Amino acid sequence: MKYRIEKDTIGEVKVPADKYWGAQTERSRNNFKIGPNASMPKEIIVAFAYLKKAAAMANAELGVLDNTKKDLISKVCDEIIEGKLDDHFPLVIWQTGSGTQSNMNANEVIAHRAEELAGEKLGTDKKVLSPNDDVNKSQSSNDTFPTGMHIACYKMIVEKTIPRVKQLRDTLYKKSIEFKDVVKIGRTHLMDATPLTLGQEFSGYVSQLDHGLKALNNTLDHLAELALGGTAVGTGLNTPKGYDVLVAKKIAELTGLPFRTAENKFEALASHDAIVESHGALKQLAVSLNKIANDIRMLASGPRSGIGEIIIPANEPGSSIMPGKVNPTQSEAMTMVCAQVMGNDVAITIAGTQGHYELNVFKPVMAYNFLQSAELLGDACVSFDEHCAQGIEPNHKRIKELLDNSLMLVTALNTKIGYYKAAEIANTAHTNGTTLKEEAINLGYVTPEEFDAWVRPEDMVGSLK
Amino acid sequence: MKYRIEKDTIGEVKVPADKYWGAQTERSRNNFKIGPNASMPKEIIVAFAYLKKAAAMANAELGVLDNTKKDLISKVCDEIIEGKLDDHFPLVIWQTGSGTQSNMNANEVIAHRAEELAGEKLGTDKKVLSPNDDVNKSQSSNDTFPTGMHIACYKMIVEKTIPRVKQLRDTLYKKSIEFKDVVKIGRTHLMDATPLTLGQEFSGYVSQLDHGLKALNNTLDHLAELALGGTAVGTGLNTPKGYDVLVAKKIAELTGLPFRTAENKFEALASHDAIVESHGALKQLAVSLNKIANDIRMLASGPRSGIGEIIIPANEPGSSIMPGKVNPTQSEAMTMVCAQVMGNDVAITIAGTQGHYELNVFKPVMAYNFLQSAELLGDACVSFDEHCAQGIEPNHKRIKELLDNSLMLVTALNTKIGYYKAAEIANTAHTNGTTLKEEAINLGYVTPEEFDAWVRPEDMVGSLK
Amino acid sequence: MKYRIEKDTIGEVKVPADKYWGAQTERSRNNFKIGPNASMPKEIIVAFAYLKKAAAMANAELGVLDNTKKDLISKVCDEIIEGKLDDHFPLVIWQTGSGTQSNMNANEVIAHRAEELAGEKLGTDKKVLSPNDDVNKSQSSNDTFPTGMHIACYKMIVEKTIPRVKQLRDTLYKKSIEFKDVVKIGRTHLMDATPLTLGQEFSGYVSQLDHGLKALNNTLDHLAELALGGTAVGTGLNTPKGYDVLVAKKIAELTGLPFRTAENKFEALASHDAIVESHGALKQLAVSLNKIANDIRMLASGPRSGIGEIIIPANEPGSSIMPGKVNPTQSEAMTMVCAQVMGNDVAITIAGTQGHYELNVFKPVMAYNFLQSAELLGDACVSFDEHCAQGIEPNHKRIKELLDNSLMLVTALNTKIGYYKAAEIANTAHTNGTTLKEEAINLGYVTPEEFDAWVRPEDMVGSLK
Amino acid sequence: MKYRIEKDTIGEVKVPADKYWGAQTERSRNNFKIGPNASMPKEIIVAFAYLKKAAAMANAELGVLDNTKKDLISKVCDEIIEGKLDDHFPLVIWQTGSGTQSNMNANEVIAHRAEELAGEKLGTDKKVLSPNDDVNKSQSSNDTFPTGMHIACYKMIVEKTIPRVKQLRDTLYKKSIEFKDVVKIGRTHLMDATPLTLGQEFSGYVSQLDHGLKALNNTLDHLAELALGGTAVGTGLNTPKGYDVLVAKKIAELTGLPFRTAENKFEALASHDAIVESHGALKQLAVSLNKIANDIRMLASGPRSGIGEIIIPANEPGSSIMPGKVNPTQSEAMTMVCAQVMGNDVAITIAGTQGHYELNVFKPVMAYNFLQSAELLGDACVSFDEHCAQGIEPNHKRIKELLDNSLMLVTALNTKIGYYKAAEIANTAHTNGTTLKEEAINLGYVTPEEFDAWVRPEDMVGSLK
Repeated sequence: MKYRIEKDTIGEVKVPADKYWGAQTERSRNNFKIGPNASMPKEIIVAFAYLKKAAAMANAELGVLDNTKKDLISKVCDEIIEGKLDDHFPLVIWQTGSGTQSNMNANEVIAHRAEELAGEKLGTDKKVLSPNDDVNKSQSSNDTFPTGMHIACYKMIVEKTIPRVKQLRDTLYKKSIEFKDVVKIGRTHLMDATPLTLGQEFSGYVSQLDHGLKALNNTLDHLAELALGGTAVGTGLNTPKGYDVLVAKKIAELTGLPFRTAENKFEALASHDAIVESHGALKQLAVSLNKIANDIRMLASGPRSGIGEIIIPANEPGSSIMPGKVNPTQSEAMTMVCAQVMGNDVAITIAGTQGHYELNVFKPVMAYNFLQSAELLGDACVSFDEHCAQGIEPNHKRIKELLDNSLMLVTALNTKIGYYKAAEIANTAHTNGTTLKEEAINLGYVTPEEFDAWVRPEDMVGSLK
Repeated sequence: MKYRIEKDTIGEVKVPADKYWGAQTERSRNNFKIGPNASMPKEIIVAFAYLKKAAAMANAELGVLDNTKKDLISKVCDEIIEGKLDDHFPLVIWQTGSGTQSNMNANEVIAHRAEELAGEKLGTDKKVLSPNDDVNKSQSSNDTFPTGMHIACYKMIVEKTIPRVKQLRDTLYKKSIEFKDVVKIGRTHLMDATPLTLGQEFSGYVSQLDHGLKALNNTLDHLAELALGGTAVGTGLNTPKGYDVLVAKKIAELTGLPFRTAENKFEALASHDAIVESHGALKQLAVSLNKIANDIRMLASGPRSGIGEIIIPANEPGSSIMPGKVNPTQSEAMTMVCAQVMGNDVAITIAGTQGHYELNVFKPVMAYNFLQSAELLGDACVSFDEHCAQGIEPNHKRIKELLDNSLMLVTALNTKIGYYKAAEIANTAHTNGTTLKEEAINLGYVTPEEFDAWVRPEDMVGSLK
Repeated sequence: MKYRIEKDTIGEVKVPADKYWGAQTERSRNNFKIGPNASMPKEIIVAFAYLKKAAAMANAELGVLDNTKKDLISKVCDEIIEGKLDDHFPLVIWQTGSGTQSNMNANEVIAHRAEELAGEKLGTDKKVLSPNDDVNKSQSSNDTFPTGMHIACYKMIVEKTIPRVKQLRDTLYKKSIEFKDVVKIGRTHLMDATPLTLGQEFSGYVSQLDHGLKALNNTLDHLAELALGGTAVGTGLNTPKGYDVLVAKKIAELTGLPFRTAENKFEALASHDAIVESHGALKQLAVSLNKIANDIRMLASGPRSGIGEIIIPANEPGSSIMPGKVNPTQSEAMTMVCAQVMGNDVAITIAGTQGHYELNVFKPVMAYNFLQSAELLGDACVSFDEHCAQGIEPNHKRIKELLDNSLMLVTALNTKIGYYKAAEIANTAHTNGTTLKEEAINLGYVTPEEFDAWVRPEDMVGSLK
Repeated sequence: MKYRIEKDTIGEVKVPADKYWGAQTERSRNNFKIGPNASMPKEIIVAFAYLKKAAAMANAELGVLDNTKKDLISKVCDEIIEGKLDDHFPLVIWQTGSGTQSNMNANEVIAHRAEELAGEKLGTDKKVLSPNDDVNKSQSSNDTFPTGMHIACYKMIVEKTIPRVKQLRDTLYKKSIEFKDVVKIGRTHLMDATPLTLGQEFSGYVSQLDHGLKALNNTLDHLAELALGGTAVGTGLNTPKGYDVLVAKKIAELTGLPFRTAENKFEALASHDAIVESHGALKQLAVSLNKIANDIRMLASGPRSGIGEIIIPANEPGSSIMPGKVNPTQSEAMTMVCAQVMGNDVAITIAGTQGHYELNVFKPVMAYNFLQSAELLGDACVSFDEHCAQGIEPNHKRIKELLDNSLMLVTALNTKIGYYKAAEIANTAHTNGTTLKEEAINLGYVTPEEFDAWVRPEDMVGSLK
């Protein structure tokens, strides 16, 4: 492989000749061989492009960067956003906890690509842009990386997570309407209980997701705060007056999202409670989705020895040894994703506690876990929606069979003959393997006519709405 | 011990003669000998008293319970709220996951105590109130227990957690103002960095708690929703029309808190995402408080071989073997509480995922962990405030010594002579054990006058505000 | 209340006149009002009594403590072990993270009670024993507290957790033998699968617990290491030669457990990986028990609309509104305990990471969570065993009905006619609502005689054992 | 793109013409677009190759597969192990929880590649090998996937994790010897304490890792158990007699690792406690490594305003804005990895609890988290070792300065003049800003000669060894 020589404040480094990165990126690449290559999430790199461009624009507007440099920086940032320079970001998550070398990776790639765009040869001494003095102007790793985190996480949530969860929510809502007259046995403690409609059952799922989405939205205000302008320790050293507000405005314009400068930059560098907060809401969604996906696989269990009240689409052969088997695979993928998100929440929580003085140095691990959770939850919702939820159908025959057979319909008699006599009827029928009606009459507590008039499942599901 | 005989739908049970509880409580007491006795949180028992009283009032108002019974129930509930009947609630957390026997414990105690108030002998057949048909009228364990959880948790948060966290927040805010001119060295990566003021450092803590309190407040709307009226599976079977709205209104009146009926009762029984959501905010506060308490013990470390920039109160001899030692014990208690809250969050999260069909049967474990977290966080904040935060003083001498000695002041030269030359000065001073000024002049990059004009810590802390 | 005046190196303190504790305990009591009073686990206090007695014996044997003092200390320690002095240990978990004041609480109670035993008046100046110089001789909080943790946790595990888990394991083993010929449908993905025996199903539970108990036993060697003799920072300052080995031997003798001195005292003070390790095994048991308890409630679900393959004891009325309902309450208590243990594991893990330099100051929170997990798991196993597992019976009628109806028996044809034709048979029967035999013959793949000879559930369960 | 038509029991599917995978893989690829493509860990795919080869060998030896087929299967498996067929495994983690389609992916690739090796055209009807009937012979997804998990995880641990952790352990051990005479101030509660040697401090780290490695080794016995031979539900249906033992032996031979057949196959399919157990040990190592890495960055903090007792290598410029800054970046990467492992432990724990009946369907998520933890921990240890630990040097000047200045040396006087007088000396010196010696003499408790004879740091570090 061909190399060129780059240098930084420590000395010279050999860098692959065809890559735009420079000395500091190369050092990090060599010093942190932990896990797969280039694991720093692409969303973070794109977010850096937005913020570097915004910083250049703000610097130019405030008179500390000339327009030629600003235009060059902007041009390269656009290329990064378009994904054209992905091969030039080789660093891993498990580097310095401030993401310093990922910030420098962006600075170096922008500077070097700009050289090329300006017609220079890579790595000549006649630098068009200095990575530190120009591209990083009015910035520090300590405020750029958390800014990048917020941009990447916010974008992921509003562009992917929320609409995708909502897609599933809307299908479940449609089903809850569709199934509104399907009266079925309820189950509490996994045991037979009084009836409800399948639509009511699904309405609970909808309500969970509605609350979850609201909770997630509640966290966005904190996540919209940007650290940029705080520089090294939060004081904004070496930034022009008005820069923090302006650069946040630029980022808001470029992304079309309501970012604003953090009121308190010391918090914004030293802790990442906004990440903890928003991921807490993702975890809540995972809790809800786990319940929903689990219910659906239990309701669909069978075909002959399970509950079998609903039918889910058969998407793939279910077994390599048992022919004809169809499995609730979308529920399985979903609940695995939920387990991951709950684990990620702990990683983020631990990382979030460990800021020291002016800086939290668990930034990359927080960003990585957050973005993974937000992406997986969104994707899993779409997958579950398209390959399972949309195709759910009631198994009317089975539902009716289980309902008619149930002992818990006796509850309708509570208000007529009292709890204790009603219990006696149910216990007797259970012991004798008979029906409620038989025993109710045998015991002399009701007449057949009364039983039929009082024990009507369809009347037992409706007092609420 | 003397016993009396009580019976339920299963049969007869011997119950201690002087206790108000009945057959079902006694069965649970015998069937669940897990952990310490009577571990069901007192706050849950009080919440049950509120909801039983409210249910009686609503039932009476809707014409399904006579006023004599309503008054008797109310009277006993008031006694429970006053703590007079604590000895009659012997059950543990680790019982049925719906809390059925704790609901029955309340029903039985109310019925039996009412007998006594009505001048009857305990356990005579001539029952003044039936535990099931009167006290539990229009209710089920499945909607009472989650209602009790929300009442207990909401009350704890607004009456204890929030005001106590706020007490600490206010002290930290006062300190941030008090320390606003104390310029000190910043630290990032635990390493020396550019200066800031001690007030700025503390302002970050205040901002964390402000955001945390806001996040906690955001969750209260969900927690204000009450399941009551859903009865067994969420349909409201056996409740009079309008009951759910009315009973929530009664609870709101009795507690003075903005409770309202849950729009979707199926969610309210089958999942407890509101508990997950609010505890997520408690966990966020734990993350913040951990950072704050940890910073403070590191800043106070010493007295001679640590950082020593602040002085914290000496509340107790710090060591049983090392005389004269003073330890940051309040920080230790606080961070232990934070570890507990983070663990509790996982218990609640796991429990929250495990609803099945119409019911989540991890209710008591969720309530227990939530109430513990909410109480401990509040108490720890008051303890930390009174025995540590209020007494924090800057160690001006030490702060100045460390500031004057710092190499990171060189950052002020970045915008004058560029990053690379500035780095050279710092590295040379570090290697030679000299001062920045000496080396800046030796290297010929600045004049002594320029150095003094440009490198002024007090000018390095202020561009933001 | 009456008080007496006590003093320590900080000054004078008023202490309740009838309590044996002294100045330092009183300070801690006032400085840490966090959560319920006296929450420091009793097991820790008993463990302190063992170690204080052992230390006195070792000190006497090594000639640094006279025998009168040794005898006095031993006598009080015996009283503590017998639980006679419980009211004199008022401190909470959430105190200094080294447990210094709990160590001093023990020192003070021993010294004061000894005064009394020696016929002196409490708090007179003529001290019979000095809390620091005599009772705490050759000790520090930093080595006593972790020693107390190991003693308490080890004792709890071998005296309660292991035998109680084993009790449940033995019942499940008996059941696995008892049910060895009960052929039933298997279920994978919650869906019908090939048959197995109920005994085989239960044998899996036994195997889980066997592995779990083995894993727990594997951790005991680390937990048997005692920090005592390390004193303040691990160097053993102020201890006589040979003391560490001797004192561990004394503790081993007093407790009858194989304690030994930790080879490396620096680890033993600064980190508590042994606690992390053993609790990891408790968490593994929780994972196993959660699976078992959950399976059992699903197998017992019904009575008419669930799986219903086993019958579990009806211990209490299951519903306050649905008469005749019986719930799997022991499974619910067990799985709630499991959720708690999994949460506790995170609290312990976080606490375990946070040692700094020579000391981990999360000792009390680690001890508390560990002891809670170990006790709850043991208790829950006994409760589950006595009130559920022992009474489990197969529902033979239901088991046979589901087995005969199953489509997955078709798997037996794989090796005869190939996977694809077998799948076709199953799919056709599923679509048509017919039996496998009908369709197998219709499709012309087997003769009736072949079908009967090849598809025999009882032959499908046995190739392994 | 060119396609060919493949079919399975559900129907026809278009598959990319140049890929070896078949219908079922393609279905899974389309049905599970969750997260990045092809995320199923490569280690799992290699493990499948080992087990498919071993199964073919065992089948052939037991007379149920002919040698030509066995040889073909073996040949393709070797290609997979060599990484030549990586492009043919496109599936994601977030698929069916049994990993059925990854098993089928292996079956299909082997069958199709074998066709090609046998000179046939891909996808012709004249199949050389049937994916189900030949490649999957005597197997099911339900026993192959857990077998693959154990092979992959075991290999990773013994080939990467253990040797890499040991590499760091050995360096720390070397340092503990190298630093054995460097007397320094101890710190407890982050506060100055009695002295120890830097070697002793490091010996604690070594002891932690020794215990951690031992704990990890303790778990391997469980992980060595293989499910293979259990087939669909654990009964071993459709396997020849002796197959389970033989196939495990073949796997042991092929991998050179002590695998053996699981004694209880029902456990081996329905729960993955062995994964929970071994990952518990990885988590314990993470707890230890977090303590070590954190201590080292605190000891190295400075250069002028921190602790500064050790010097760590300067590997990269530490700041994009603060010139001359060097950060403890390896500690940061390490502690981020530790946070991840602790989060992964929760994901694995949750997943481990959720087996239902005969199968746990959280297999891929468990494998993924385990392999990530095992790899990251190993890699991070090597990185930390090479770029930090090996280069650690004591800062003798700083160490001596802090030691000489310490007040905690007063502890040496405890056994001479008693705890209370010693405390008075320390307090007085602290208040007056003087030295211990001055105040000890002023207070008249010791003579100068006594002080010098009694207070000798080098004598305070040695009573243990």
